[in-house]
Amino acid sequence: MINETNEITRIEGRNPVIEAFRSGRTVDKLYLLDNCHDGPIKTIVREARKHDTIINFVNKERLDQLSETKKHQGVIAVLAAFTYKTVEDMLRLAKEKDEPPFLFLLDGIEDPHNLGAIIRTANLAGAHGVVIPKNRAVGLTPVVVKASAGAIYYTPVAKVTNLGSCIESLKKEGLWFVCADMAGEQMYHLNLKGAIGLVIGSEGDGVSRLVKEKCDFIASIPMKGDIESLNASVAAGVLGFEIVRQRLN
Amino acid sequence: MINETNEITRIEGRNPVIEAFRSGRTVDKLYLLDNCHDGPIKTIVREARKHDTIINFVNKERLDQLSETKKHQGVIAVLAAFTYKTVEDMLRLAKEKDEPPFLFLLDGIEDPHNLGAIIRTANLAGAHGVVIPKNRAVGLTPVVVKASAGAIYYTPVAKVTNLGSCIESLKKEGLWFVCADMAGEQMYHLNLKGAIGLVIGSEGDGVSRLVKEKCDFIASIPMKGDIESLNASVAAGVLGFEIVRQRLN
Repeated sequence: MINETNEITRIEGRNPVIEAFRSGRTVDKLYLLDNCHDGPIKTIVREARKHDTIINFVNKERLDQLSETKKHQGVIAVLAAFTYKTVEDMLRLAKEKDEPPFLFLLDGIEDPHNLGAIIRTANLAGAHGVVIPKNRAVGLTPVVVKASAGAIYYTPVAKVTNLGSCIESLKKEGLWFVCADMAGEQMYHLNLKGAIGLVIGSEGDGVSRLVKEKCDFIASIPMKGDIESLNASVAAGVLGFEIVRQRLN
Repeated sequence: MINETNEITRIEGRNPVIEAFRSGRTVDKLYLLDNCHDGPIKTIVREARKHDTIINFVNKERLDQLSETKKHQGVIAVLAAFTYKTVEDMLRLAKEKDEPPFLFLLDGIEDPHNLGAIIRTANLAGAHGVVIPKNRAVGLTPVVVKASAGAIYYTPVAKVTNLGSCIESLKKEGLWFVCADMAGEQMYHLNLKGAIGLVIGSEGDGVSRLVKEKCDFIASIPMKGDIESLNASVAAGVLGFEIVRQRLN
């Protein structure tokens, strides 16, 4: 489902980076030398803005440290190990399979092992895609690819600028949204059938307030223990398969 | 529930290692210099056998590499970050809480993040303990302690020589055993109430044949995707909380 591009995950130097943008490669992140404003750098910034790439301005020491070639010319681009898909691709996939859409939305997962495990879970739960925010989250790094156990070859992953607006526009497509939170209603008592988006919060902070407010349901997993919460990928699995269970009936 | 001992996780040198055994510390693993058979080393080997400690004979280069003090005298002991409990402790805990016993048994989990996440899940699912085998498995290393998010302070972990014999003796205490396998019956159709042991297989190979044969039920998680299996800690979470769901009814 997702096109593997190639093994290079970092590109250094002005022309190679401009070339990467123009050939349609997904640039996850850009490191630029502070206070550098000449022509080629301006072109790179313009391309980055066009593609919503995150730009980090750093000093020379940091750039030298990040550089593998030691010929960075003031710019290093980190490429996505995979090409991201769009939310529209996911809705199309659901339609092709004649199934109500089922998406995972991750509100700031930072651990690459967790992201990989969740993509793996999404695939096996029969979800049509995984949506991650551009900021405050890990991208599709090689560690994520490995932890996904191959699921990333099949399950589309989309990166969006704003998770809240993404939820709003998907609501217009008929999706309901449920997020996980201790304070919610026990998941077995909610109706989680139909077109649904499952929102999983970050490891430390859970689901952010703005995103939670947009959700139709807040679901809790029944907890009996002494500690606070499940690992984020385990919580995604438990809730994801509660949706699977309800869809089977 | 589990007593934290102290921060030292490695002891080097003959007398300190003999002392560690005699003071009752749990030695997870022992590295001994190849072809070294003098008196103190013989004493250490005898203590190790008495406590079922795994002994690894290694050459001088490897031992030097493992050494932090560079004064290993041919012996390095890796201590458990926590004191292990026994299966009897777990049954006692269940009795105290007036609940049917609920244990997790891990057949060769090798990834410390997975082991930590499973202890965390066991705690929140209200299980009375986690049983791991002595061989082919990760012990309670600092990474496991961290990944357990504190659950290891509450949920007992026992290390047994043979998982099969452990299952046999727990059957006499009235426990039923269920293991996860793709070829099993869908978990929703099994009766998983009552005194139960949930067996989770290793990341690569799943549940071993000998252990599987001792299980009363083989449960499968309904899978819709393109890849083979869930991450081991996610599978433990999904099955563990199916047991929780059935116990709630």
